[in-house]
Amino acid sequence: MRDAIRLATKNVKSGKGGPFGCVIVRDGEVIARAVNRVTALNDPTAHAEVMAVRAACKKLNDFQLEGCEVYTSCEPCPMCLAALYWARCSAIYFGNSAQDAADAGFDDSFLYEELKRPLQERRIPISRLLAEEAIENFDVWRASAQRVDY
Amino acid sequence: MRDAIRLATKNVKSGKGGPFGCVIVRDGEVIARAVNRVTALNDPTAHAEVMAVRAACKKLNDFQLEGCEVYTSCEPCPMCLAALYWARCSAIYFGNSAQDAADAGFDDSFLYEELKRPLQERRIPISRLLAEEAIENFDVWRASAQRVDY
Repeated sequence: MRDAIRLATKNVKSGKGGPFGCVIVRDGEVIARAVNRVTALNDPTAHAEVMAVRAACKKLNDFQLEGCEVYTSCEPCPMCLAALYWARCSAIYFGNSAQDAADAGFDDSFLYEELKRPLQERRIPISRLLAEEAIENFDVWRASAQRVDY
Repeated sequence: MRDAIRLATKNVKSGKGGPFGCVIVRDGEVIARAVNRVTALNDPTAHAEVMAVRAACKKLNDFQLEGCEVYTSCEPCPMCLAALYWARCSAIYFGNSAQDAADAGFDDSFLYEELKRPLQERRIPISRLLAEEAIENFDVWRASAQRVDY
């Protein structure tokens, strides 16, 4: 965790991104280290945890991170938390809270509240279209002989 | 939306990934098209919406997608929904629901429920460490002259 915190501070001082760092460890070995690169890469998904998950999966040549522990300098936002669930990591440790992040001007707490709201009360308008046609996607998936479940 | 649905079906038939496609449009012009590439790229974050956001931001050379409409073949999972919020797109349209995805074996509905739970009730253990040291990250951020807010 101390490493993740140091990475975050260093990232701000270098002017390359937000105050967030993440380290992924398996069996006591560091698999990946990453920092927030949103503005440097023009990629709003380039949060430290997402970057670390991508790097760790690349290193392990797998799309899952079973047995891996994630040390992140701040409580994961909903995007990152869900990414860690999709990666199926084994444990998550964080330093700052989502409220600390909100106090520093980040949207983390707002996003947690927003995701709990019914669709029609969301800040970004969201609605459903062509449901009868879309369901074909899952029919094809269920019938597919080549599918790789994840 | 019809384009996003077609992309999803084509993706399954090609054996390259899950039944998900996404198209991002601005002022009637298609900015990006993408499909799920989780298993093909060994990247659990490579959902169609995340891939489309990355491609659209690269094309527009920006870390935000103001004025962009997102057409996705399935209701975004929490990772993708939060990614669309971080990208600040203007509207979201989806075909299949999170329940349809759950019926086909995907974790979307589970993740929405999981994110509502308090930390101590979550499936993946999550806990806080070194909070007193971590807060330095935001102190440095607030004081930084080179920071780019996002």
